[in-house]
Amino acid sequence: MRNFKLTIRYDGTEFYGWQTQPGRRTVQETVERAVSEITREERVRLNCSGRTDSGVHAVGQVANVYSATRLNPDALLKAINAKLPEDVCVRELCEVPQSFCANKDALRKMYRYVIQDGRLRDPFLRKYAWFVRQSLNAEAMARAGKCLVGRHDFRCFETEWPNRLSSVRTITHLSVNRFGECIWVDVEATGFLYNMVRAIAGSLVQVGRGFWPETQLADVLHAMDRRLAGPTAPPEGLFLMRVTYSEKPPASDSQ
Amino acid sequence: MRNFKLTIRYDGTEFYGWQTQPGRRTVQETVERAVSEITREERVRLNCSGRTDSGVHAVGQVANVYSATRLNPDALLKAINAKLPEDVCVRELCEVPQSFCANKDALRKMYRYVIQDGRLRDPFLRKYAWFVRQSLNAEAMARAGKCLVGRHDFRCFETEWPNRLSSVRTITHLSVNRFGECIWVDVEATGFLYNMVRAIAGSLVQVGRGFWPETQLADVLHAMDRRLAGPTAPPEGLFLMRVTYSEKPPASDSQ
Repeated sequence: MRNFKLTIRYDGTEFYGWQTQPGRRTVQETVERAVSEITREERVRLNCSGRTDSGVHAVGQVANVYSATRLNPDALLKAINAKLPEDVCVRELCEVPQSFCANKDALRKMYRYVIQDGRLRDPFLRKYAWFVRQSLNAEAMARAGKCLVGRHDFRCFETEWPNRLSSVRTITHLSVNRFGECIWVDVEATGFLYNMVRAIAGSLVQVGRGFWPETQLADVLHAMDRRLAGPTAPPEGLFLMRVTYSEKPPASDSQ
Repeated sequence: MRNFKLTIRYDGTEFYGWQTQPGRRTVQETVERAVSEITREERVRLNCSGRTDSGVHAVGQVANVYSATRLNPDALLKAINAKLPEDVCVRELCEVPQSFCANKDALRKMYRYVIQDGRLRDPFLRKYAWFVRQSLNAEAMARAGKCLVGRHDFRCFETEWPNRLSSVRTITHLSVNRFGECIWVDVEATGFLYNMVRAIAGSLVQVGRGFWPETQLADVLHAMDRRLAGPTAPPEGLFLMRVTYSEKPPASDSQ
């Protein structure tokens, strides 16, 4: 069996998230079916870097899939895309070593959380940003977020979820930038807890609104209590932007 | 009766265009109903700068409406927006002289036509751009478009439509610019014929594909025959960006 790495972009609006669920339209099931139609293999199983929830978008989700197809990567990319609906697209496809696992080999993932603030909701952003009907102080949010960078126990930002061994993760980058009516919260980390970016965004907005002093994020982090963090921001503002792996996979001719 | 000028933004995806039609969800009917609920006036009639078709978007459509309401513009703006669905928003509202007519007083209108080109359709642009599965030569399109600037008979770009007195219009600005995978065709004119921007975009794409030499647009213009122009580009790429009036209306406190 050959192993293929796929970089997948999707508008999450009309999907019930990544993971296959009976009776639901999901990204995983949609892409697996397209691959299956092309390769004529019945058991196609996409393994992704990490599931995304209902309504969450991806600019660069990564998954791998095993197949015995004899198509070259470029032909496979074209053929799969021809079978996909308009709200999901394979942007890159290349062959990788047998051992490559999109989930376990991910070194870092970068998410962007988009907030639109102000008095007037932008109709074009209603499915691609969290609308906060107040002018937020993005500079204060940027300063407040700095304390999260580094290796910490982030359990204060974790929604209830099956036990994991550890809630320690490392945020390698966190920035808050304003572009007109939009604020981008970019978070890159070695791994994320369930709903972690959305809880961080919800907490930063508490600072941006002036409800919390800038120093409160550090207090929340150290208290390790989810009840002290801000609300979980809604899914439509969240984008999985890119996943970074240790080795560059073999050059793809699909570009 | 007082006269109010409204600047309206809408995502045209789920509207059957601007103009009220029985049994259809239109922008006009949606906004008129919101105004009516606020002012408690039964006969509310929005008069716009120019209708937009089904699927066409507006960043800055302008309309005026007469009302006896005693609300100040800022309160009226807030109240109307509270009644509107998420895909349409009144961005500005101010009181204007009785004589102001959003249609007849418009000096210029600016439309943007957005094209996404290349091998891979972007899921996020499927309702906001025309996807052309080929790399287009945007520089050639920019050069080709120059011949359209100025006062000309544009009947070659007019779709069949009830007779008008004249198909002479003046394009004051036309530019073609690439931003990554997107090409923006911006056209500002003193007036437009039916489907004119979409026919121009369709013709420029013939040049961008390499199907037409750059000089062919001038030939089409002078032949004054619609059959010689390119196809009418689809509605989802079209945005009414702004409408310009001769006098700045009185300062609005609605921002």
